Formats: sequence, structure tokens, C-alpha cells
Amino acid sequence: MALIVQKFGGSSVADAESIKRVAKRIVQTKKAGNDVVVAVSAMGDTTDELVDLAHSVTPIPAGRELDMLLTAGERISMALLAMAIKSLGVEASSYTGSQAGMLTDAQHGKARIVDVTPKRVREALDAGHVAIVAGFQGFNRTTGEITTLGRGGSDTTAVALAAALDADVCEIYTDVDGIFTADPRVVPKAKKVDRITSEEMLELAASGAKVLYIRAVEYARRHGVTLHVRSSFSNAEGTIVYNPAEGETVEEPIITGIAGDLSEGKITVVGVPDTPGKAAEIFTIVARAGANIDMIVQNVSASNGRTDISFTLPKDQGQSVLTALGVSQSDIGFEGIQYDDQIGKLALVGAGMRTNAGVSAALFRALHEASINIEMISTSEIRISVVTRADTLNEAMRVVHNAFGLDADSEAVVYAGTGR
Amino acid sequence: MALIVQKFGGSSVADAESIKRVAKRIVQTKKAGNDVVVAVSAMGDTTDELVDLAHSVTPIPAGRELDMLLTAGERISMALLAMAIKSLGVEASSYTGSQAGMLTDAQHGKARIVDVTPKRVREALDAGHVAIVAGFQGFNRTTGEITTLGRGGSDTTAVALAAALDADVCEIYTDVDGIFTADPRVVPKAKKVDRITSEEMLELAASGAKVLYIRAVEYARRHGVTLHVRSSFSNAEGTIVYNPAEGETVEEPIITGIAGDLSEGKITVVGVPDTPGKAAEIFTIVARAGANIDMIVQNVSASNGRTDISFTLPKDQGQSVLTALGVSQSDIGFEGIQYDDQIGKLALVGAGMRTNAGVSAALFRALHEASINIEMISTSEIRISVVTRADTLNEAMRVVHNAFGLDADSEAVVYAGTGR
Repeated sequence: MALIVQKFGGSSVADAESIKRVAKRIVQTKKAGNDVVVAVSAMGDTTDELVDLAHSVTPIPAGRELDMLLTAGERISMALLAMAIKSLGVEASSYTGSQAGMLTDAQHGKARIVDVTPKRVREALDAGHVAIVAGFQGFNRTTGEITTLGRGGSDTTAVALAAALDADVCEIYTDVDGIFTADPRVVPKAKKVDRITSEEMLELAASGAKVLYIRAVEYARRHGVTLHVRSSFSNAEGTIVYNPAEGETVEEPIITGIAGDLSEGKITVVGVPDTPGKAAEIFTIVARAGANIDMIVQNVSASNGRTDISFTLPKDQGQSVLTALGVSQSDIGFEGIQYDDQIGKLALVGAGMRTNAGVSAALFRALHEASINIEMISTSEIRISVVTRADTLNEAMRVVHNAFGLDADSEAVVYAGTGR
Repeated sequence: MALIVQKFGGSSVADAESIKRVAKRIVQTKKAGNDVVVAVSAMGDTTDELVDLAHSVTPIPAGRELDMLLTAGERISMALLAMAIKSLGVEASSYTGSQAGMLTDAQHGKARIVDVTPKRVREALDAGHVAIVAGFQGFNRTTGEITTLGRGGSDTTAVALAAALDADVCEIYTDVDGIFTADPRVVPKAKKVDRITSEEMLELAASGAKVLYIRAVEYARRHGVTLHVRSSFSNAEGTIVYNPAEGETVEEPIITGIAGDLSEGKITVVGVPDTPGKAAEIFTIVARAGANIDMIVQNVSASNGRTDISFTLPKDQGQSVLTALGVSQSDIGFEGIQYDDQIGKLALVGAGMRTNAGVSAALFRALHEASINIEMISTSEIRISVVTRADTLNEAMRVVHNAFGLDADSEAVVYAGTGR
């Protein structure tokens, strides 16, 4: 008998019919002789609707109360799901984050899990029940307050439960068949990947692949949880995200997948005095503005003793960083700021890159042949990222996908849904 | 400095605008120098919508899961209300039933309060916060489960908090100006009552007056809580529901008010053998069917050694009782069952009745002069109830209201709303 954690996102439980469908799937897994724990998100767009409601009452909702509000969302979906399972003749009980022992720090809206003590979940399993746990939510023991985990929180809940319960696998149900070599909506010949290491998955998620949230993948990697990303619309095997054992040698493809990202913008600080400490001053200001910067490029110093520094960041953080830098312009002594929100970021990920030279060269050649200009480059051990014009990104993805021999013989099936 | 508990029902917090209006009212009370605790219901029709959602997933939702589901309702309204208050510059924190220490027995859907330990509410007050508490919900310590209190639960929450915190008054906000001598929609000349004893209020509530729920009034009476029933649309004083001190003599009007009720039906068990124990058999079956019977009349035994037994009960319990009795017809040996859902019940309530003879006679005379037939009669120390045809009830109420000198000089203002 295996212990399986299953995660269903908001689009999988958007209405009563979807909930009944998901209930059937859970009952199948249970009747196949497994213990089943389910992490579930709020129904459809409930969370967004609750956020809108809060904003209609006050421009800046208090964090504590916003978390109290938002956690109503999973309370609804989990109770309905438990009812639906029970009506199929299988015992089920739902648990809030607090009841399931999801202990977090006290940061409202983006709490981090500090411990998981799923005593009641274990008792439910021992009593033969399916345990339904509210995704996205936790509890801080010191303050006694309810918290939420932020974006992708339900994935993290599922992975954290799988780790704490020592589950055999954590199944992440979504509206695509698994992880693809590229987004099939952009690259029609993208192929489903059967297996991928959590390290590669982490790079893909960080580079814009939206199927899994980076925090959940990090958690899975750190705690050795095996993920199975699969479709809630079919019984087909999806993609296994695994953690190779220490020293395990696996035959790895050079390139596992490609990710594209249109959500970032580029800030260029122009005419920065080329004296020690100026970059540090700039990035201290950027960090204080709360921005998550990604790629950084510093141009070679010009003959006038000044240089340009460019970096990318999520577009929704652009304005606050521009403002913060503007305020400090005279202190730092730079000449101006440029903001470019028409960039696209392409990332190539593959563990096999470590031992294969020539990947960058092949990438640059493919883009060059398609007349696509590269504006910035950054690399890690298993990833190469380049920035292009936004309107050339999709073409760049198709060209590179083909150049590295990733194209399938036929086109992938794309579902109508949009993920979580 | 007084400690005031305020209760706002679903219609008072139906949307963002209403919530902001209620927040202003709470802030006024706080800024006038009072400590304020608020019990709040779910927004508008949220509870009914959640029940519908449950029924769209399963015909018979499990009690535990239904309570988990429904408690999401107050979680939403209380968080929004706390945000709205904070945006007006007054600190506020919301608490679930569990966090506020509303301890109940383990009956899902109709839990009874067994203790109230509002430690966190007191701490919030000590820190200068307004404490917002979810109405309708509680927590069972033995099972660790969330419970709900059933119909009128938010009134009960407010009263229980007022008792536990030794509040100076428990204000019940509603969409009418207070308790009236009769329903102003039926009796246009009904007058607002300034003061009423909780004993009288209890009889009125039990007789169909809908402004307060009977359980809340019972709780207030048992724990000596003074209620102030008032309008959330005006600052006018409403009705004080008080508990006279032991031996206190108050100048009491003979009749305080009249209630009418069209929600009951009448079952007559025809031809019951007039032998000992038959009535007990019948009412055992009725009780097992879960019915709340109200008036009972047993006719004088006919010459054939058989008698008829009639009783009234809520219409929505009619079918199950008819079925239960039908199954036992041959065991008990009665001849048949009649069901009449076209009855109206009129109740006259007044503590002064105790010391004034002739109330019944005056009531019967007034109805006789209006040619209204009386079908059943029942009395308590401070109440007389009669059953009439449903289509004569409103006329009966107006006639009796006038006969006992309750008519106001002018007609009452009736708001569009319908109460909770």
C-alpha cells in the first residue's frame, strides 16, 4: 500500500461538476489500495474575487485580515470535496492548514513553512479516511494567527505534506499532460518529458515555466520528494520530477527543455560613475524596493569613466524600483534611467550541459540564423538564458527547440485551460 | 467606559458599501469611549448559497463538512469588517468562533454553547482593539471539530459573548426600529415598544415574532443580559429587553404585543381509541420524527370510545410526521389522519395578564365581533394563543390590536428590508 499525496488546483475544482469529477479520481486511487492525502486550492477564481472584495472595502487591506479572508476559499473547496467523496461511499475529512499542522513563520501573505505536524491527517489515514487539506494556508504558533503561503502555495502545501508523511509520491494535477520541452501553445512540436531532475525543473520554473511553482520544487528537492506532474483530464502518465541519488550517474539529455518569459522588464541605469561601490549602492536601493532582479549586465566602462548597468525584473515591480532609483539619482550620480518592458527571456535548461561544451555556440548560431538579436546573456551550470525583443521570443523558442533536436514528430494536444 | 456587544446580521453586511457603513457605526461607538465587541453574520445570502452549493455536490451533505463549509461565510464578512474599521483609523481584529472561545457540544448544524472563554477577545480589548467575532460558529474541544449553532446563531453568539464578558448591553442591529406591538406590515398602527421583559419577549419570539431568535432570548434571560434591539439605519433608541430584578414590581401593561404566525400546520389524528397510553404512543412517534409540536388539543371522547387529537407543528416538518404516523396506524389503531396547512396562529403576550382576569374573554369577544372563528386555544401565564383560518389571521391581528388599546395615533414606518 502506497501513500499518495494529490494536489488539485483551482481550475480542477472550479464548480460542483469538477469537484465531483475530482472526487471520483481520488476514490479510484483510494480503492486501488492506497492511502490518499489531498491538498486543494480554492475554487476557480475565488481567491482573486476575495482580493477584489477586500480592495472594495479598503485600498490597503491589513495582512492579518486578508489572510483570514483568503483562507475562506480553501475552506469552501475542501469541505465540498470531502462531501463529494463521502457521497461516493469513501470516508473523507477536511482539515484547515492549522488543523493539518502546517506551521509557518508569522509573515502574512507570504509565510514560510517552518514545520509540519500532521497528527490529525495521520489519524484520519489510520481510520481509513481520505484526508483533504486546505492548500495555501498555515498557522503561526507564536502569534496564534492564520497565515497564507503566497503564490503557488497549494503546490507547496502538497509537497510539504508529502515530505512530512514520507509519501511515496506527490501527484500535482494540472490541465496539461506534464512538463513539456517547451510551452506547447508556443512551440507546437513540444514533447512531453517523462523524467526530469528537480534541479532542471527548478531552472525551468525560475525561467518562466508555469506548470510548477519554484518554491514547491525547491521544497521537493530539499526534502527528497518525488513529484508526478499529470493531467486531471486523463489517466496518462505525466512527468516524474525526481532527485538523483548522490553520485548517481544518469544518461542525461543535453537539453531537457526551454522556457520563455514575457513577464519581465529591463531597467538600464545610464552613466553610472565607474568608481568602486556604485553597483552596490544601486542594488541596495533595488533590494530595498523589494524587487527580485534576475539577469544583470554591466557594460564595459566607456572612455568618459562612466558605465551602464542593466538588469531584468518582474514588470509589476518596475515602477517602484524606478521611483526608488529616481530619488537617489543625485546621491549616486548616474545620468539617467531607461525602462524597457518589451523584452522576452528565453532559457535553455539541461543537466547534460555540465559535460557538453558548445551549447552556447549552438544557441547563438540558431538565433543568428533566424536574425534574432541577443541583448543580454546569463548562464548557470545547467542553464543559459538570453534576452531578446518580446515580439521575437516565440519565434526564438521554436527555432531553438528545433535546433536542439527536441521537436516531436507530431504536434502536442493543448487543452483549453490555462493552468492554475 | 462601557463594554458594548453589537450584532450585525447578514443584511447589514450584504456588500462592500454596507460593510463600510457598519464600520462607521462601530467606530462611532468606539470613539464615544466604549469597548466594542462585534458579532457578525455572513454577508447577505452567503449561507444559503453555500448550502445550495453543498446540495449541488451531494444530496445529503455530511454535518461536519457542512459546518466547515458554512463557517467560511462569517470568516469572509468578519475579515472585511475588520479591514474596513482599520481603514477608518481604529484598530480591529477578527476572530473565528474557535479563536473567540465559543465552546459548544459536538452536534453539527445545531450545536449548543457549553462555555465561552473569550481570552483573545479580552486581550484585543485590552490592547484598544475592536474585536470582531464570527457569529453562528463554535468549536468542540473534545472532538477538535468546528460546529455551527443553527438558525439565529449570530444572535446567540452576541448574547453569549455579552454574558461571558459581562457587557453592559448587547445591541442587536436589525432593519426595523425595535420590537413592535405587532408586525407593522400586518398591523399598520403597531407601536414600537420601549421596554419589554425577556419573559414577554420569549413568548413573542416563540409565537412567531421574527426580530429576535428564541434561543438568543433564552440565553439572555438565563444569563441576565440586557438586549437593545435597534435599527442599523438610524440612531434612534430601539427596544430594551430587560430582566426585572427578583421581586421587582414594575408597572406592566396588560398586553405588550401580538404575534402572528403562518408557518404552522395542524395534524389531526382521527378516531384514536380512548384507552390509556394512546396519546403517549402518538407523541413518541412525533418526537422521533424530530418535530417541534406546539399546541395540542384532545377532543372530548365520543360515544364510540374514540377521540381526535390535534396538534400544530412547523409546516416543513409536516410530511415526515405524517409518514411516521401512517406507518404506525395499525399498531395504534386510529382511524385516519388529516393535515391542514391553512391555519394562522395569533398570540397575545403581556406580563400584566398574570394579575388581570378577563383577557381571554376580551380576546374572544373581539374575534367574535369580527366573525373570526377560533379553532384551538392554548394559554401560558403571560400568553394566550388561538388558531384561526390562515386567511383571517391578519384581520384578527388588527382587530385584537385595536381591542386592547395598542393602536398608535399614526402608522408605523416600514422599511423595505425583511430582517435577517
